[in-house]
Amino acid sequence: MITLSSDFGSPYPAAMKGVVLERARTDVQLIDVSHEFSRGDVRSTAFWLREVLPYFPPAVHLVVVDPGVGTDRNALVIRAGEHALVGPDNGVLVPPARRLLETDRNDTLEYYVIDDADAASSTFHGRDVFAPAAADVHETGIDALEAVSSLTAVNREEIVDLALPEATIDADRATGEVLVVDDFGNVITNVPGEFLEGRDRLRADGEEVPVGETFASVPAGQRLATVGSHGNVELDVNDGRGDEAFGLTVGDEVRLERD
Amino acid sequence: MITLSSDFGSPYPAAMKGVVLERARTDVQLIDVSHEFSRGDVRSTAFWLREVLPYFPPAVHLVVVDPGVGTDRNALVIRAGEHALVGPDNGVLVPPARRLLETDRNDTLEYYVIDDADAASSTFHGRDVFAPAAADVHETGIDALEAVSSLTAVNREEIVDLALPEATIDADRATGEVLVVDDFGNVITNVPGEFLEGRDRLRADGEEVPVGETFASVPAGQRLATVGSHGNVELDVNDGRGDEAFGLTVGDEVRLERD
Amino acid sequence: MITLSSDFGSPYPAAMKGVVLERARTDVQLIDVSHEFSRGDVRSTAFWLREVLPYFPPAVHLVVVDPGVGTDRNALVIRAGEHALVGPDNGVLVPPARRLLETDRNDTLEYYVIDDADAASSTFHGRDVFAPAAADVHETGIDALEAVSSLTAVNREEIVDLALPEATIDADRATGEVLVVDDFGNVITNVPGEFLEGRDRLRADGEEVPVGETFASVPAGQRLATVGSHGNVELDVNDGRGDEAFGLTVGDEVRLERD
Repeated sequence: MITLSSDFGSPYPAAMKGVVLERARTDVQLIDVSHEFSRGDVRSTAFWLREVLPYFPPAVHLVVVDPGVGTDRNALVIRAGEHALVGPDNGVLVPPARRLLETDRNDTLEYYVIDDADAASSTFHGRDVFAPAAADVHETGIDALEAVSSLTAVNREEIVDLALPEATIDADRATGEVLVVDDFGNVITNVPGEFLEGRDRLRADGEEVPVGETFASVPAGQRLATVGSHGNVELDVNDGRGDEAFGLTVGDEVRLERD
Repeated sequence: MITLSSDFGSPYPAAMKGVVLERARTDVQLIDVSHEFSRGDVRSTAFWLREVLPYFPPAVHLVVVDPGVGTDRNALVIRAGEHALVGPDNGVLVPPARRLLETDRNDTLEYYVIDDADAASSTFHGRDVFAPAAADVHETGIDALEAVSSLTAVNREEIVDLALPEATIDADRATGEVLVVDDFGNVITNVPGEFLEGRDRLRADGEEVPVGETFASVPAGQRLATVGSHGNVELDVNDGRGDEAFGLTVGDEVRLERD
Repeated sequence: MITLSSDFGSPYPAAMKGVVLERARTDVQLIDVSHEFSRGDVRSTAFWLREVLPYFPPAVHLVVVDPGVGTDRNALVIRAGEHALVGPDNGVLVPPARRLLETDRNDTLEYYVIDDADAASSTFHGRDVFAPAAADVHETGIDALEAVSSLTAVNREEIVDLALPEATIDADRATGEVLVVDDFGNVITNVPGEFLEGRDRLRADGEEVPVGETFASVPAGQRLATVGSHGNVELDVNDGRGDEAFGLTVGDEVRLERD
């Protein structure tokens, strides 16, 4: 199985699919994760993939959110237990790789660079570099990356690291950040859901907001704080858009207080 | 085969796919119906699924348009002949289930609730309740739902019913409703196509409109009434948007007259 | 394998998938190319398919961009080497078929019309004509189209031809056209990339623009000309929209000068 993630919209992902299907000798199941990731946004893509990929069975995950395409950034394969991630060396693969490793209870990530990546087109490495590498990894097997002739093992220090920002919690105050806004307008922060435990209201940037277990715990159109499906504090509106009601967007600081 | 339908946009559907693929022991083909159903709109989703699902071979249909997620609404599986539908108990499964039954010429629907659905997350039952149930139904077999340990059979009276509204026809006058507006801007009413039979014009809310067998039966930019691919009267514009030309949106009343 | 391309948005493509899956007796892998092609735009769809389909292994390509649905235009199958294309006879299949043939190094295209295409619905031939034909071609085999009972061989002169416009190059001046604008806002012209060879700047409609091998060869927000992944000259903005910066849209004339 190969999953595909990008910020390409349409129809560029189809060229990647064609390359994989043409190159893979065996039948391979292709699953689209999303091609609507926020354009060039390495961090929000890393967040989503960290939350979504661990639900998949062992797979090769092809990830192309690559604002530096054509520069001398490396092209990477990371092995995370029974999974492999293929994409640019800009940090986007790192948070999901770490989470996949926890899930698989293995101990270390393995890193490989894709050789001769700059011999390809300068503008579409998804098609010309990453898709062929994903097919090769799939065909050779995730447990045998050292046997893929186009890969060279590298150390962790040689790749670009990325850690999603963590919230600061000081007694009953949390200072965090908006990681992403989802398609529903839910504002997903990096404050762990435990911060809300046992509380039925909090103050978000000074304003009182009820805490609910579900959107429907407040009337339609009203604001609430809840623990989202990823385990973080979300600022939402039942049957409405939290980002508009709270005036928050990706990267904004969020200050939460509980009594 | 498992089809997936939701109002999730992107990337939440991928988590459902991961869960299904991880949980299904056998190979399972996943087919997206749409993840762009109108947000929280149970009725228009029910219409589209009623029109589209009967074209599929026997399959498990996972449907998550669920404005009441996290409330005490039940989680359902309905068996309709050789098909099964999995989703919230808000009526969305009922019109397609009835239509699938007609298609399969079986006589009754079977209803099951998914046990312990409220033990899961409060905000993402698509991932935590419905996707696992769809995988279980797929693995056990649609003809053996009574053997799925997490399901309990219930009677028809215990589930939420939903019937799409029917038009009233009185001689040469039809009073109906806009069921949906499609991506092309075509206004799909609930007036049966037979109402147009043998006519070459009608009056829609008092204005004369030509009846055409195809969009191209009028010049580009002009209005027409036609019988859509679902068999209902549509109000369209050739190479344009019917909803804008007629000033109509979902739920609006439509009065049609023929001579 | 059957690929699907249309301008249908959502959820109409699902009905085509259902029909194919129901009708194909064998397992068939369905791959979406795109359902977001520019509505009714035969030429830009033909461009994208010409660029994308050659990356696929042998497949049946179902293509429904069909502004003339329900008129007396023919319904076609074209065999291009190991590939088959199924869709309306409006030219959309021709440029990709020619390119697939080059790729496959076969010598001639074969053309077939689908019999009784007008016996179907008048508004949804994707579901009622082209999807069944694609399934039949898949089941019978691309190398045996003469054995598909619903197909009748025709000559090249009997089908609608379409050639994408070619740029005129006169020494250091190229006069071309915008073929498409992609989702990133990149302006894709029909001027061959060779025109930029060895140059580090050109004039586009009189204004100086640097030539770069990659978007990142200029600072973010700045304009550049580059050779896109399809081999043509593109007018782009690094981390921005070329169409807005250059004020260009599909069909516009573009005059390029090099020193």
